[in-house]
Amino acid sequence: MPEPVVRVEYLPWAEGEIDWQRPYTTDEEKMALAVNISRLNVKHQPGEPFGAAVFRADTGRLISIGMSQVVRGKNSVLHAEVVAIMMAEHQLQVYNLRVAGHPYELFTSCEPCAMCLGAIHWSAVTRLVCGATREDAQGIGFDEGPVFPESYSYLAARGVEIVREVLRMEAKSVIQEYLASGGLVHNRV
Amino acid sequence: MPEPVVRVEYLPWAEGEIDWQRPYTTDEEKMALAVNISRLNVKHQPGEPFGAAVFRADTGRLISIGMSQVVRGKNSVLHAEVVAIMMAEHQLQVYNLRVAGHPYELFTSCEPCAMCLGAIHWSAVTRLVCGATREDAQGIGFDEGPVFPESYSYLAARGVEIVREVLRMEAKSVIQEYLASGGLVHNRV
Repeated sequence: MPEPVVRVEYLPWAEGEIDWQRPYTTDEEKMALAVNISRLNVKHQPGEPFGAAVFRADTGRLISIGMSQVVRGKNSVLHAEVVAIMMAEHQLQVYNLRVAGHPYELFTSCEPCAMCLGAIHWSAVTRLVCGATREDAQGIGFDEGPVFPESYSYLAARGVEIVREVLRMEAKSVIQEYLASGGLVHNRV
Repeated sequence: MPEPVVRVEYLPWAEGEIDWQRPYTTDEEKMALAVNISRLNVKHQPGEPFGAAVFRADTGRLISIGMSQVVRGKNSVLHAEVVAIMMAEHQLQVYNLRVAGHPYELFTSCEPCAMCLGAIHWSAVTRLVCGATREDAQGIGFDEGPVFPESYSYLAARGVEIVREVLRMEAKSVIQEYLASGGLVHNRV
């Protein structure tokens, strides 16, 4: 019986690839980082084609990153957005990003699944920026769960600014390369 | 800067309180365990009033438990259901419970929030049993996120049997005791 401890951490390849010092200014620069993480995650198999990052919105400082680790980590919860949120809160030592006292934004290379959209709600980020669409992920077979237009309205009504399809084509191409390279589409059925 | 590693584990009080050897037979016995976990979590402050457990459905064997660790763990993702799912997959060394080759069921002391409902989708449990209702959690102020009747229909259409309001009053009483004892209702706003 394995010891009942799950360790959530960045993958070793992230060490030399992420520039933590530079400020990230535009939405395109921030999304380019999330998409690059998704690409590196696919390159270092087995990694699903999804990347995310949390920034402090007012300074452009990179707080955390996330990459999907479902198959590698044997953990269906470890989607890119969940990893980025856990790491941001760990970094700042807060139970949500509101209590950290500044605005934070989450960039994700693909629109969130049902779980991640709920995690984004609890994280208290003030802005969500997405690359590829739900249809792009579902197009290669991922069953993204119960997300409806009303799900986004619910977050928007609580003050979350939502921006979609930033660098969509770049993000979508990584998703399609994943399938072409034989990547596993893990689903419940 | 804290080392970027998040450890997810059971809380120390669980060591002497959980009977891992006995078979659990009825829905009421299984729910009684989830509710007892929620009660113990509140008793050992700071713990939110939510407990969960994963059982192998065909044998009644207890696979994992979960307790909400948001404030204690400084981690908005660590709801009871998420902890139970992560621990079950870690225990069985699988990326979802379908690939473990047997039917598994999740018992939760309260209907899942949006994040946990999505996590339940990915976990591939075949049965979800709930105690208290969404309204019971929202009644003390928790903002449970975008869950709609269609969210449950989505899971049901993929073969998840859903049972609600098992030992609801017992589960609800723990939620209300939490508020009365000054427990923190963490929300995004």
